[in-house]
Amino acid sequence: MKKIVLIRHGQSQWNKENRFTGWTNVDLSLQGIEEAENAGTLLKKEGYSFDVAYTSYLKRAVKTLNCVLDKMDEDWIPVLKSWRLNEKHYGFLQGMNKSETAEKYGNEQVHIWRRSFEIAPQPLSKDDLDNPRHDPRYASIPPEYIPDTESLKDTIERVMPYWECEIFPQLMKVDNILVVAHGNSLRGIVKHLKGISDEAISDMNIPTAVPYVFEFDDNLKLVRDFYLGNAEEIKRKQEAVAKQGLAK
Amino acid sequence: MKKIVLIRHGQSQWNKENRFTGWTNVDLSLQGIEEAENAGTLLKKEGYSFDVAYTSYLKRAVKTLNCVLDKMDEDWIPVLKSWRLNEKHYGFLQGMNKSETAEKYGNEQVHIWRRSFEIAPQPLSKDDLDNPRHDPRYASIPPEYIPDTESLKDTIERVMPYWECEIFPQLMKVDNILVVAHGNSLRGIVKHLKGISDEAISDMNIPTAVPYVFEFDDNLKLVRDFYLGNAEEIKRKQEAVAKQGLAK
Repeated sequence: MKKIVLIRHGQSQWNKENRFTGWTNVDLSLQGIEEAENAGTLLKKEGYSFDVAYTSYLKRAVKTLNCVLDKMDEDWIPVLKSWRLNEKHYGFLQGMNKSETAEKYGNEQVHIWRRSFEIAPQPLSKDDLDNPRHDPRYASIPPEYIPDTESLKDTIERVMPYWECEIFPQLMKVDNILVVAHGNSLRGIVKHLKGISDEAISDMNIPTAVPYVFEFDDNLKLVRDFYLGNAEEIKRKQEAVAKQGLAK
Repeated sequence: MKKIVLIRHGQSQWNKENRFTGWTNVDLSLQGIEEAENAGTLLKKEGYSFDVAYTSYLKRAVKTLNCVLDKMDEDWIPVLKSWRLNEKHYGFLQGMNKSETAEKYGNEQVHIWRRSFEIAPQPLSKDDLDNPRHDPRYASIPPEYIPDTESLKDTIERVMPYWECEIFPQLMKVDNILVVAHGNSLRGIVKHLKGISDEAISDMNIPTAVPYVFEFDDNLKLVRDFYLGNAEEIKRKQEAVAKQGLAK
């Protein structure tokens, strides 16, 4: 069986502080590092091994991947990074507290910003110093590709070319691929692999730092998918993610 | 000015226990992690920035690089790994305590094994489970390339093709390259860059986790080289490395 394992990064500082993060480059929290290390230990214990790994340009994903590969003793494998695997860009919401935003704009509006398929939050101004177009890490990307805000649809549309051209075709050459990315960039991949509708994908909550295994036959047809680990804990983590956007 | 910065990995568990390591895949000690993080903080403070980084297949180098890039907030840059940057293979000595080996075989013999240019320790048997030819990470390397032991000369001869084909030519495309590797693989690169003789290179001790900066003009001619950081501390670190092979 050929395998692609998806992992959402562990808890970040801003997850902990319940702030919209998007493309802001915040670090993992200590809990996030521990979650990532546990994922690596579990994968090793269950006999997983990878030929190549992919991640985004954002520290919380890169560091999660580094911790996973360290614990698997596979930190020597090739790692490829792409801005296309970055989290959804949350526009003007980046940096704002989710509960405070819900108090100010209402639960419903925040739910739309977080979970609507097509509606994006208001954009960051192009002059805003937090706009990624002022960050040297995006300097080699055509300016019209760099988002000032994104809907989930926009996010998926910039993730999929990388999936289609780079990640998935690798499965013709190797048997085991690891992808460490973000809630919304992974939603795009899972939506594509499982044929989930535009409406349903927003309600699918991927838990942090839990290996999500996809198995393929020799014709690269998806055979089955499952989370690795304790079912109770996974459910608890999914519920925690779903609750983040509510007013306190 | 174009720059290549070389860094020897921070203290490993076996450096701490004064054992011959070579290709054995030991982890960094806590002190080693701290050294690596300090190197990253220093590079950032001094205004360094890198376009691409290279390291070996060994955890202590990969982790040093990860710590450096994390502290520089440059963990998004491309990282390329090669077995050719691995430490010298120490043959049957791998795992043995340096002082105990000196007591058993004499200081002079150990000094020859550690510092002779052409003499290699006795090889590891091809059947030995610690022989790298049984490690999946070297499975894609032609078997005749995989060492059972190495002299410094052997080490340099397998490092240089990678330097010549991959690392150095990159300087035509980018301005700043980071290489994190090992005492002896870095000796090879420094010997080549500075034209150091076979006799003199063995006595050159590269301190752990100190950025060693090489600056080149537009024709890629070496203009100057220097260690970054506190001169006293660098000297202390060099002396610590030199003393490792002596009987207590």
